[in-house]
Amino acid sequence: MKLYDSQSAPNPRRVRMFLAEKGVSVPVEQVDIASAANRAPEFRAKNPTGGVPVLELDDGTFLAESVAICRYFEERHPQPALMGTDAQDRAVVEMWQRRMELELFIPIAQVFRNGHPFFAGRIPQVPEWGEVNRQHAEASMTWIDRELAGREFIAGERFTIADITALCGIDFGRVSKIRIAAELANLTRWHTAVSARPSAKA
Amino acid sequence: MKLYDSQSAPNPRRVRMFLAEKGVSVPVEQVDIASAANRAPEFRAKNPTGGVPVLELDDGTFLAESVAICRYFEERHPQPALMGTDAQDRAVVEMWQRRMELELFIPIAQVFRNGHPFFAGRIPQVPEWGEVNRQHAEASMTWIDRELAGREFIAGERFTIADITALCGIDFGRVSKIRIAAELANLTRWHTAVSARPSAKA
Repeated sequence: MKLYDSQSAPNPRRVRMFLAEKGVSVPVEQVDIASAANRAPEFRAKNPTGGVPVLELDDGTFLAESVAICRYFEERHPQPALMGTDAQDRAVVEMWQRRMELELFIPIAQVFRNGHPFFAGRIPQVPEWGEVNRQHAEASMTWIDRELAGREFIAGERFTIADITALCGIDFGRVSKIRIAAELANLTRWHTAVSARPSAKA
Repeated sequence: MKLYDSQSAPNPRRVRMFLAEKGVSVPVEQVDIASAANRAPEFRAKNPTGGVPVLELDDGTFLAESVAICRYFEERHPQPALMGTDAQDRAVVEMWQRRMELELFIPIAQVFRNGHPFFAGRIPQVPEWGEVNRQHAEASMTWIDRELAGREFIAGERFTIADITALCGIDFGRVSKIRIAAELANLTRWHTAVSARPSAKA
């Protein structure tokens, strides 16, 4: 088993943090995104979309997509549960994971992809779309702040994969000058607490 | 239990098709997207993002996000399995479901959202972003055609939720004049086969 990782990218951090919460260690190979190694044919043979991370299983299967990799480890190492504990709870956690991804993580990534010089010439950039997403991400943080008024974590009273997605998204916003507004006290409290977990350094 | 549905939207079709494959019937209430009933406070109390579908459970829980709703039914009605059969298979199906969503369904939805008069004045439209996504969706169909050269369905030799996501995405492309190119013989064969399933009419 081997995890194709990239230290600077937000998606691999989701998996590293998930593994750290599980106490699971996996051999790692770094993929150099800066030199576009992930876009080369050798890597695309592992993952046609060119995304990192990718988990290579012992039977030669290449498993891509952060959440799919997390689910694999959730099933193989059920404790602590990070994706729910019964049918309804797993669905609720999945709902919140997806909300954090679709309403926060992806909009923040779109700000970077459409506005940052790193992607100039690599992908078609649409700065106006980046600005739409900046507003989307800021509105989402205001909404999540309200949600967190009534509970400790994103999906309820225990830490889950939804917290990981939200933290990795928000922290990746720094490079695009997206930050939690000072008045969002609940989100700030949550961010401080989640950032203090040892897994946040993974 | 009640499913808040909208006949014309692509996401509710994913859940209806999933339920039809399971042979599960759920009471339904239609939400009138045309009059923006899904953006009204009454509906946002059920789902803050304003998205459909939403599943109301008997304990009063509102479960949003199509894939989360599907997972709930997958756990409650395991046969036929549409999200994988063991740890590795479930991860592989999740990978393909996500690829179909991120590389096909969402790009096709973005073409509609950013280019169609329906959304004018409802959301900030960026037509240039729509065009970027049109090319993304077309490139994805070319890629998926190559994948389907070696197998019957998106995630392997059996029908899964990944096929549902891909079908609902591609069919929703019609309104934006996105169609499977004639030379994509494998994707065309797959589309014909999947469209012939009774669940495709759900």
